[in-house]
Amino acid sequence: MTDDERWMGAALALASRGVGRTSPNPSVGCVIVKDGRVVGRGWTQPGGRPHAEAMALAMARDAASGATAYVTLEPCAHRSVRGPACADLLAESGIARVVAAIRDPDPRTDGAGLARLAAAGIETCCNVRAAEARDTMAGFLTRRTQDRPHVTLKLALSLDGGVAMGDGRSQWITGAEARAHTHLERSRHDLILVGAGTLAADTPRLDVRLLGVEDRAPRRVLLSRGLDAPDGWLTVRDPASIAELPGDLLLIEGGAVAAAAFLAAGLVDRLLIYRAPILIGAARTLGDIGLRDLGQAHGRWRLSDRRTLGVDTLEVYGRA
Amino acid sequence: MTDDERWMGAALALASRGVGRTSPNPSVGCVIVKDGRVVGRGWTQPGGRPHAEAMALAMARDAASGATAYVTLEPCAHRSVRGPACADLLAESGIARVVAAIRDPDPRTDGAGLARLAAAGIETCCNVRAAEARDTMAGFLTRRTQDRPHVTLKLALSLDGGVAMGDGRSQWITGAEARAHTHLERSRHDLILVGAGTLAADTPRLDVRLLGVEDRAPRRVLLSRGLDAPDGWLTVRDPASIAELPGDLLLIEGGAVAAAAFLAAGLVDRLLIYRAPILIGAARTLGDIGLRDLGQAHGRWRLSDRRTLGVDTLEVYGRA
Repeated sequence: MTDDERWMGAALALASRGVGRTSPNPSVGCVIVKDGRVVGRGWTQPGGRPHAEAMALAMARDAASGATAYVTLEPCAHRSVRGPACADLLAESGIARVVAAIRDPDPRTDGAGLARLAAAGIETCCNVRAAEARDTMAGFLTRRTQDRPHVTLKLALSLDGGVAMGDGRSQWITGAEARAHTHLERSRHDLILVGAGTLAADTPRLDVRLLGVEDRAPRRVLLSRGLDAPDGWLTVRDPASIAELPGDLLLIEGGAVAAAAFLAAGLVDRLLIYRAPILIGAARTLGDIGLRDLGQAHGRWRLSDRRTLGVDTLEVYGRA
Repeated sequence: MTDDERWMGAALALASRGVGRTSPNPSVGCVIVKDGRVVGRGWTQPGGRPHAEAMALAMARDAASGATAYVTLEPCAHRSVRGPACADLLAESGIARVVAAIRDPDPRTDGAGLARLAAAGIETCCNVRAAEARDTMAGFLTRRTQDRPHVTLKLALSLDGGVAMGDGRSQWITGAEARAHTHLERSRHDLILVGAGTLAADTPRLDVRLLGVEDRAPRRVLLSRGLDAPDGWLTVRDPASIAELPGDLLLIEGGAVAAAAFLAAGLVDRLLIYRAPILIGAARTLGDIGLRDLGQAHGRWRLSDRRTLGVDTLEVYGRA
């Protein structure tokens, strides 16, 4: 790993702090490094402003002169009523070098940020740990390229694929550690959706019950063609309607019918599978997802992370 | 890890060579070490004789004098028409020290082997890597303690627990690497069982199609109350009847009905789950295993191994 990749790792860690809180902006991280020491750090603040670079420059002050800025997204080139362009701020700071993980696909920037820096005599470099940077901005990028939120489907399953016993009982399949991790995932999403069956059966609170992030509960959404949603909830009539939802990161929490509907519509980008070491038998499992033959099922999902949570295992899959 | 544990590891590796071929004897491994060098090695031969110690002593000859023998099971104390007692052979060889992984539960030995060695002035030691040794003799130990074969249930599953599509199509869920590993597991069992539905649907050959071990196909068994088994097959009418089968290691290969029957009967000791990174939806899954509430499902299975096979993952669970 090069020094640039190492420092970008620090910027990526900062970027992850804002995930789920910066919509419609991406969550970006920035570290400013001088003589091998961090002199400034920042990440996109809740609601999308200030930007990471502005935070880091405010911390670095004069130390930014001659330093290198590592930023997980190309600095923006467009002024806004909400703040100045980061490319201008960096150029004025005396920064000597800017390393960006990826280019900003926003047409108002899309290379113009790096070009403005280069025109100011700053050395620029791009494509450093780009895949990881894209992961931290999955919502922003999916909204921009597909005009809909990025969708994560969470499934808590037994070894034999049960989401519940045959009669619907599902408390509990996974243990306390896995359930706590689900709450952490909730805190990193703008929106959380359940189907009408789950709402009726479980009346889930869908809040974040983790110390320190209780205030980061996502907006609740009901998938239903008829049922009225509780106060404060949003409603979508079908999976395709998620395009109209406010927010770029959507977590599907249940149940098996909603999960199958989103999979059948091809609208799941990421699978979070919490697997308990139990067998249920004659279990309630995932419904029809429109598969016509087994060959079609292959090559769609790639394992991106696996971790042990108590006796359970979390596997994360992304599109292959 | 101590030196004794390291050398016992070599004996365990030798023991694993005979697994599935030594019934009704356990598969045992032995290394004889002198001045830090292996001077003899052996493992139980097909059919159960010669024993590991006899093989290793025959290789070591005079070098056994003053050496240490590492053996995965207490040397036998009983003479048989098929060969002399290993405790006597070791005592006569001039061996100075014998390290056994576990005591032999066979009442004809059960401590008498080590006692005879000690009486001959040989230093003895037991309980070294005992759990791994028990794994290599699971069939022998299960037959002795429960008077039935040790049962491994193999399941090839999708992420959502499907053993097949809803209409029964199951070729293929897992890839070539996982299927090859299944053949390796077959070669390490005395018996392989399928249900009547699988026999009728797939007419499986259940042979070992792996270069070098093609001759190690287990005896085929049909679970059926009525259907006639093909020539050369054995039949059991229900899971409990496996007690009468010749052989100590039984592999259940399919299908979902047979799997559920053995699980419901509490007759599965080990789960081999080959998991493909695919979703099927509305899949054929494991049937009723008699679970009455979710609490009962927990604490029964413990992960003992996990490995990647191509894009698939093998997880091995034992009884908790």
